Amino acid sequence: MSPPSAMDIEIKAVTDTSAVAVPDPLTINGIPAWREKVAKMPTGVAPECSSDMWKSPACYTKPKAKRFEHFLSQEAKSRKASTLKSAAGYLKNPGIISLGGGLPSAEYFPIEHLEMKVPTAPGFTPEETQTSGSILHAGKHDIKEGKSLPGNFSELWSSYWIPPNFSASSLSTPSTYAWDTALRLFTERGDYIMMEEYTFASAAETAFPLGLKALAIPIDAEGIVPEGMDELLSNWDVQARGARKPHVLYTIPTGQNPTGATQSAERRREVYKVAQKHDVYIVEDEPYYFLQMQPYAGEGAAVPPPPATHDDFIKSLVPSYLSLDVDGRVCRLESFSKVVSPGSRVGWIVASEQIIERFVRNFEVSSQHPSGISQIALYKLLDEHWGHTGYLDWLISIRMSYTNRRDALLHACEKHLPRDIAHWVAPAAGMFHWIEVDWRKHPGVAAGKTLEQIEEEIFQSAIEQNVLLSRGSWFKADKSATMEKMFFRATYASASFDRIDDAIARFAASLREQFRL
Amino acid sequence: MSPPSAMDIEIKAVTDTSAVAVPDPLTINGIPAWREKVAKMPTGVAPECSSDMWKSPACYTKPKAKRFEHFLSQEAKSRKASTLKSAAGYLKNPGIISLGGGLPSAEYFPIEHLEMKVPTAPGFTPEETQTSGSILHAGKHDIKEGKSLPGNFSELWSSYWIPPNFSASSLSTPSTYAWDTALRLFTERGDYIMMEEYTFASAAETAFPLGLKALAIPIDAEGIVPEGMDELLSNWDVQARGARKPHVLYTIPTGQNPTGATQSAERRREVYKVAQKHDVYIVEDEPYYFLQMQPYAGEGAAVPPPPATHDDFIKSLVPSYLSLDVDGRVCRLESFSKVVSPGSRVGWIVASEQIIERFVRNFEVSSQHPSGISQIALYKLLDEHWGHTGYLDWLISIRMSYTNRRDALLHACEKHLPRDIAHWVAPAAGMFHWIEVDWRKHPGVAAGKTLEQIEEEIFQSAIEQNVLLSRGSWFKADKSATMEKMFFRATYASASFDRIDDAIARFAASLREQFRL
Repeated sequence: MSPPSAMDIEIKAVTDTSAVAVPDPLTINGIPAWREKVAKMPTGVAPECSSDMWKSPACYTKPKAKRFEHFLSQEAKSRKASTLKSAAGYLKNPGIISLGGGLPSAEYFPIEHLEMKVPTAPGFTPEETQTSGSILHAGKHDIKEGKSLPGNFSELWSSYWIPPNFSASSLSTPSTYAWDTALRLFTERGDYIMMEEYTFASAAETAFPLGLKALAIPIDAEGIVPEGMDELLSNWDVQARGARKPHVLYTIPTGQNPTGATQSAERRREVYKVAQKHDVYIVEDEPYYFLQMQPYAGEGAAVPPPPATHDDFIKSLVPSYLSLDVDGRVCRLESFSKVVSPGSRVGWIVASEQIIERFVRNFEVSSQHPSGISQIALYKLLDEHWGHTGYLDWLISIRMSYTNRRDALLHACEKHLPRDIAHWVAPAAGMFHWIEVDWRKHPGVAAGKTLEQIEEEIFQSAIEQNVLLSRGSWFKADKSATMEKMFFRATYASASFDRIDDAIARFAASLREQFRL
Repeated sequence: MSPPSAMDIEIKAVTDTSAVAVPDPLTINGIPAWREKVAKMPTGVAPECSSDMWKSPACYTKPKAKRFEHFLSQEAKSRKASTLKSAAGYLKNPGIISLGGGLPSAEYFPIEHLEMKVPTAPGFTPEETQTSGSILHAGKHDIKEGKSLPGNFSELWSSYWIPPNFSASSLSTPSTYAWDTALRLFTERGDYIMMEEYTFASAAETAFPLGLKALAIPIDAEGIVPEGMDELLSNWDVQARGARKPHVLYTIPTGQNPTGATQSAERRREVYKVAQKHDVYIVEDEPYYFLQMQPYAGEGAAVPPPPATHDDFIKSLVPSYLSLDVDGRVCRLESFSKVVSPGSRVGWIVASEQIIERFVRNFEVSSQHPSGISQIALYKLLDEHWGHTGYLDWLISIRMSYTNRRDALLHACEKHLPRDIAHWVAPAAGMFHWIEVDWRKHPGVAAGKTLEQIEEEIFQSAIEQNVLLSRGSWFKADKSATMEKMFFRATYASASFDRIDDAIARFAASLREQFRL
């Protein structure tokens, strides 16, 4: 008998041994059979879809998520269901003629069909796409004619992350927008939110105009330090802070932006315990989750071979907070922007039913839904063409590409950067490399220059050398905090592969010039 | 010498004779020549675009819009430019290697090309598309290779509406989202906003959870009654209302939802004067603007022939508030949802430079931008394939289709509805028909039933007859206001043409049953 395959048991469990005992029949290999049993997806123009339409019955036997009314803002609590979208429920009546909703007839949409040329797994190179690629076709009347079903295709990816309690998911435009909405759901003006000490600058800039302040949580090479978070919360002084104790943690657990840090399974468990102790809601922003790379083999060593099977790949992934969640206190923000298509503005969120319902109430009178054209393109590619197994092939393929890019950057750093002033840890995921530069050795210090002034000088010197890096100070969660260390963020995602070495050589030249080495 | 063509003079001026004296070289016929002179659109992944890149120099010689700091909310005032997006400015340096932004390389996007089958103007029917339709092609590297320029294509349509002062435009996801953002820009919790007495339910439901109240402005068959608005504002009692005087008007001037009313040019001028008098900012939501129809010829009469030329078509359109704006106090929300592609989630806003800048500051840390896939599809169709003239052909074509649909609905109403209790005005634009039903003649009145109860009974009775209409009460801007009249909204946009008569016959049957006629 062959050993059980990760493809046949609940995916979330495989790297989280504590949860292996909880089986779930909705697995990747089980999906085709499950779909046969599921009610047909609703069709028509912008039909209402729900994750209830495809969720495995096992989800319903699990304990219910806790309710979190006390986390909801005044705005979120006062949202009601959209009157007009509720009325659309009557469209299910057979034979009904609708003079109800103002949705134009398909006659007045000029796009007859849409086609895309895409690679066929596992041949993902441009050359292979040329020879073995496929043309995917979406006709205007496909849905009506029962040919295609671009319903709630978040089934595909949510099924990786079904937490051990009742959960739901909703399509959204990706993380920045979902985070903006989360802030409207969970916070009031004057609140503090917890963020990694250095965080995605746009996430912080989304929050500040809402009257929110960042409580910077200390981090190390594995991201959030749970003891540091616990201490800040345990010693919270409402009077001194002029604000209630923070109840929202924003974290990028995998390939963190900007530090590149990835929280281990153990670290996540510890942070989750602190969240339980202080009744904190966790928003995990995971755009880089599937950019977990091969272990860094070191200078001159060969890249380890790719995961031999889909099972090995899935086993290699660190568990999501969602998979550790027993209370329903986690909302996971998902995005295609980094692994399939930036600019398609399609993402999805997974959280407990209560929280998703509040998100949807906000979405339906704001962004409404991601672009239908994007949804069709992604549905055709990911569901109809690649399916889960082809998508896993794709993810393994970009894992290897990012591993090669990261390694090229690390090799360049090892080759060019002055080791007495530049320090780093090899990133295990994502697209960012966080380089510490020992600013106290800069000659400007003797002249009384601040860290910020020196950082600016180095940044401008690099620009003069024609290389762009990001300044560490841009990513400070708490702009008022004093920086002890100086960092630069380098990404290996966007430059052409051949120029990575040159880029770091240029940065090294500016460091040597600045530090008079 | 032939008479001057509307295509050669400033479009906005043609129906607004008071403004004809202000020429503007950026006209439809002038665009190709103008483009030759304009700086090349920026390329690359998600480049920064601005309407300044294509605006006619004449825009800059016009008086500047007023500044409206005093309208901006605490949230809007505190927004700063996105740090990371600002850093992207350095990418313009020739030869620079970017290790800056986390934008994946195009190697990791699996869509090699996108194609669409679309009609070629003026052959818009499915049959004509079959024979004369075109395949539009967008390759992954087109922009890099200089083949295609999907930059700020709002040039195309904003050029209709350039107001007589400095203005700018920005792409956005369409009206509901743009309105949500406008509320965050212009209002504080506790404020009143002005809306038509009956308004788009979702627009009201976007506002209420933000702690806003609606001040219902009286309407007649031409929409907002300026005297009514003036009176409400002149007599505003801050103490009694517990709120400052309202400073935002939300209006759907053309084919209003739900009443179908269209404000005449004269009406718009009067409302604008009231807005100036009381220092009010106008948000005009214009999804139905290009669904202005042929005049209704009456029962049994033939539909008047379509506009003979593009000029005639443009001349037939009522002027936008934006074209009447001399202060910069108008923001126009535009959408493709009703005239090209619902669900593409692409729209744009036009307002003064100051206001657009504040919108953009919000967009860049929230929705970011409309779907790139949608943008490419619309750019290919509207700019490269149809161009302005083909798009005008398309708009004339759907004008005639909507005219036919409206007429079918009106004929059905004339044929089936009991005239002693049902009254209506033929809509001149949009997709909605607003039917007043004389509830006081309902037998339930004697039994003490309220208007709301009777409305609900009629609605349910229609559902039993298998026809869905919308209840007038759903659209009340001020939910606490007492309704004197009862309405139902019927749309002729979505039902198949052949079933419109049947639908109204069913509604008539339920009215006769309800009123025992």
